[in-house]
Amino acid sequence: MKITIAQLNYHIGNFDGNLQKMLSAIEEAIAHESDLICFSELSTCGYPPRDFLEFNDFIRMSEECVQILASYSNPIGIIVGAPIRNPNMQGKDLYNTALFLYQGKIQWVQPKTLLPTYDVFDENRYFEPATEYGFAEIKGKRIAMTVCEDIWNTGSDNPLYTTNPVDYLKAYNPDVIFNLSASPFSYNKSDERIKVLKSNALKYKLPIFYVNHCGAQTELIFDGGSLVMSPDGRVYEELPYFEECIRTYVLGDVMGGRPEQVQSMATIEKIYHALTIGIRDYFRKLGLHKAILGLSGGIDSAVTAVLAVRALGPENVRALLMPSQFSSDHSVEDARELAENLGIRYDILPIKDLYYGFTGILEPLFDGKPFDVAEENIQSRIRGILNMAISNKFGNILLNTSNKSEMAVGYGTLYGDLAGGLSVIGDIYKTQVYELAEWINKEKEIIPNHTFNKAPSAELRPHQKDSDSLPDYNILDQILYCYIEERKGPMEIIALGFDENLVRRVLRLVNMNEFKRYQTAPVLRVSEKAFGMGRRMPIVGKYLV
Amino acid sequence: MKITIAQLNYHIGNFDGNLQKMLSAIEEAIAHESDLICFSELSTCGYPPRDFLEFNDFIRMSEECVQILASYSNPIGIIVGAPIRNPNMQGKDLYNTALFLYQGKIQWVQPKTLLPTYDVFDENRYFEPATEYGFAEIKGKRIAMTVCEDIWNTGSDNPLYTTNPVDYLKAYNPDVIFNLSASPFSYNKSDERIKVLKSNALKYKLPIFYVNHCGAQTELIFDGGSLVMSPDGRVYEELPYFEECIRTYVLGDVMGGRPEQVQSMATIEKIYHALTIGIRDYFRKLGLHKAILGLSGGIDSAVTAVLAVRALGPENVRALLMPSQFSSDHSVEDARELAENLGIRYDILPIKDLYYGFTGILEPLFDGKPFDVAEENIQSRIRGILNMAISNKFGNILLNTSNKSEMAVGYGTLYGDLAGGLSVIGDIYKTQVYELAEWINKEKEIIPNHTFNKAPSAELRPHQKDSDSLPDYNILDQILYCYIEERKGPMEIIALGFDENLVRRVLRLVNMNEFKRYQTAPVLRVSEKAFGMGRRMPIVGKYLV
Repeated sequence: MKITIAQLNYHIGNFDGNLQKMLSAIEEAIAHESDLICFSELSTCGYPPRDFLEFNDFIRMSEECVQILASYSNPIGIIVGAPIRNPNMQGKDLYNTALFLYQGKIQWVQPKTLLPTYDVFDENRYFEPATEYGFAEIKGKRIAMTVCEDIWNTGSDNPLYTTNPVDYLKAYNPDVIFNLSASPFSYNKSDERIKVLKSNALKYKLPIFYVNHCGAQTELIFDGGSLVMSPDGRVYEELPYFEECIRTYVLGDVMGGRPEQVQSMATIEKIYHALTIGIRDYFRKLGLHKAILGLSGGIDSAVTAVLAVRALGPENVRALLMPSQFSSDHSVEDARELAENLGIRYDILPIKDLYYGFTGILEPLFDGKPFDVAEENIQSRIRGILNMAISNKFGNILLNTSNKSEMAVGYGTLYGDLAGGLSVIGDIYKTQVYELAEWINKEKEIIPNHTFNKAPSAELRPHQKDSDSLPDYNILDQILYCYIEERKGPMEIIALGFDENLVRRVLRLVNMNEFKRYQTAPVLRVSEKAFGMGRRMPIVGKYLV
Repeated sequence: MKITIAQLNYHIGNFDGNLQKMLSAIEEAIAHESDLICFSELSTCGYPPRDFLEFNDFIRMSEECVQILASYSNPIGIIVGAPIRNPNMQGKDLYNTALFLYQGKIQWVQPKTLLPTYDVFDENRYFEPATEYGFAEIKGKRIAMTVCEDIWNTGSDNPLYTTNPVDYLKAYNPDVIFNLSASPFSYNKSDERIKVLKSNALKYKLPIFYVNHCGAQTELIFDGGSLVMSPDGRVYEELPYFEECIRTYVLGDVMGGRPEQVQSMATIEKIYHALTIGIRDYFRKLGLHKAILGLSGGIDSAVTAVLAVRALGPENVRALLMPSQFSSDHSVEDARELAENLGIRYDILPIKDLYYGFTGILEPLFDGKPFDVAEENIQSRIRGILNMAISNKFGNILLNTSNKSEMAVGYGTLYGDLAGGLSVIGDIYKTQVYELAEWINKEKEIIPNHTFNKAPSAELRPHQKDSDSLPDYNILDQILYCYIEERKGPMEIIALGFDENLVRRVLRLVNMNEFKRYQTAPVLRVSEKAFGMGRRMPIVGKYLV
């Protein structure tokens, strides 16, 4: 028996587009004389469809898509992920299912049991868990179908769930396990996937075909890396990361196993590809292709510009250089050099006169109060207006260039440098931004060396440096990681040896600035805990403030 | 036996503040010789604590609070809501519980069974449902404790849940049912609460003490209205809406019943109070007290200003009037008249010169392209900068004045009129804004009559009217309500008699503008489906776009 797995880049709610992709994959599978093709989780409608699932009309469109797919299932079995209505009166209205289509009909519907409801996942919001189990059958082979999380309840000290659906499925003596996934990338968990699949293969002594989504949906980036695993727990093949891929396997060969085949890619390289795909898909799926950003001469906007150029091409990226009276000469020089290295259009718009326009009109209202954050923010917001004016005039999406360290402590101006349609590096800490910049420059100097060597500064007042108001980024980023990624409290972080006052100040800043993060762009997620939909905090909360 | 119910305004994460409130309520109850006092859901930590629940340190602080409360439970039984750790290895780490404290100890812990995970609720994200049931006992009376949603699974055609915890509790033959709630206000469901309690009282033939949270937590507004119900299903007493209240009842009297006592308040008046409380608590809980807003002379900013003044006092509200060359004379006049009626400070800052400053510097980049939305947005964003400059200089929070109709179709400028720390009227449609304005003016003309009579306009280009680009608000708001509140699809809405092209255009606008709403302030929620945490939509989604 031959089995095809299709690792495709779906688009939420684009039923026609998703269907056409699946139909051409089916055609390819048939050309390879495949008996069975498997797509990923919720492939009809894209993942995550979020509250679109509450629209009857949206579900109807997915049902139509399934019917059309079924009509193509005569020479080949099709396993597809789709939301299916719960026929019972009680419980949530939908199941998140794997459907087996064959001989023109839906032959078996296997709902998902373990519904992730944490971090970026909201599946209990929409879906009822499975209570019944069974199998699909094709050419004498029994097939167990699982959806994503269903195979993940293996061997934790503190499991989130009280059941293991694979145990129920195993009772039907399947010959092979399929897993339909939409598992978002994060740099901390790359190896876990193989570990989980291995533990399933060894426990059940069965081959597993794991089919993952690839591509980005706003903030979530799916890295592909679909896997075929032999019953001995060795990786028979791993599909490429971050790109579409359709491959066909002979089941007998997979059963036999062979020396393990695993790709190796450095973490920083994965982050680089993830962010590039994140930008590319955000634009493409919105039907847009041009970006703009402000280049300050600093490392954050430099890295963002490089990623944008790699994602969209230099002809689709333009930059504004907007020096004020507080900008150093080298800022413009460094920004200009970068733009020239990248071959992108840049314009220089000095903002001093506009700034004095604002301070002039505000002078009678400012009552002689000294220069402070109000004047600093005026500069940042003038830049926001200029960027957005080009955005509105020519249809360029403004890219936000804030990093995770700044976003965490609120070191940024709402409607100023925090503006933009997409936050590109908002999930990597400042120290990681430098790492990424070094990786970008590893073969030749794209980002000017001077950008690396100077002290980070917002340049909103004379001789300002980030270190005037923030601790060293090496320390700050460690404290932030403990608090944000690891959810440690102040006492636990202090116990690690950090200064008590500093820890309390940093945690207070993080919590106080929730209101800013509430209003910033979606952040491309590459960590286990990004700002945005996966981290839901009260704004008026008093905790640690 | 005497029973006290305490309807209090908690603050998320403010353990000390919440504890002090509860301790003084206990003191008051003891002074009334009460035997038992009941607080509302998650009263130690405030509701909703959101992802603070993932911090071990946060749970520890709640546990300390419970221990202190227990030490006060010698002369009186205390029922309090708190998150409690799940002692089992499997499942989520917490329960959302009602605790019975008596004689210095936790006597019984009853976890919540029905965990709302829809709209603004995320309880499955944190909590494991109850699987065991029991009762508390004090002075020979058996008490069944339920938490919020636990009593709501009554008589729907399509229940969300597959169990009814009150049935399990009933098996222990309780004498009285307590319900600890944190049930957010919405104008569409005011009567439902009494109906649900009635159905429980009649089914189980027991008195019910329903204790609700009051006050606002960012976008969620809790209206109080706690209820004591006799076993015959009549309301024995309803506590006031939107304010703290502590009352003591003789259980025997409640058992006996009396003619039903229910408050009546018009919907528009409830909305008025809800929004006022929403503003007041947002400021108070952030430790701030001053607001600023832009007054355009239109109805939206007028209503927002009135609500701000009622919430914070005229001395804490100031306004900027920022006419451009496209503003009509009467705009400034109407705004000035309103400010004078309200007794608030206002300043007039004409923006024409600043506008020409921007268009001048941008002219070489605009390549002779005609005036369009880019120039319109520059005006709106200049106003944003001026408002924010005062906000930053003096600590006034900028109030956003956009209504739900505009926010729905994206009729607003990101970082311009969509700026602000809190959206006051973002959950009421334009037609409701007029209703609210009329209600405000019912005794005397506070909002100038002229503001009612003129055609709505953004005044960003000559002779502009909202009706140039939007349908009549009477029609628009109905279509929006069908789509947003009722989740009807295009075919269902067209079937109601609306023009097909119009419906498709409106729905497309709503979905296309998700990116704008993603970046706007939290919206005070008064409907069953507000923009914000209760409506989670993909940005790159292709549905209806």
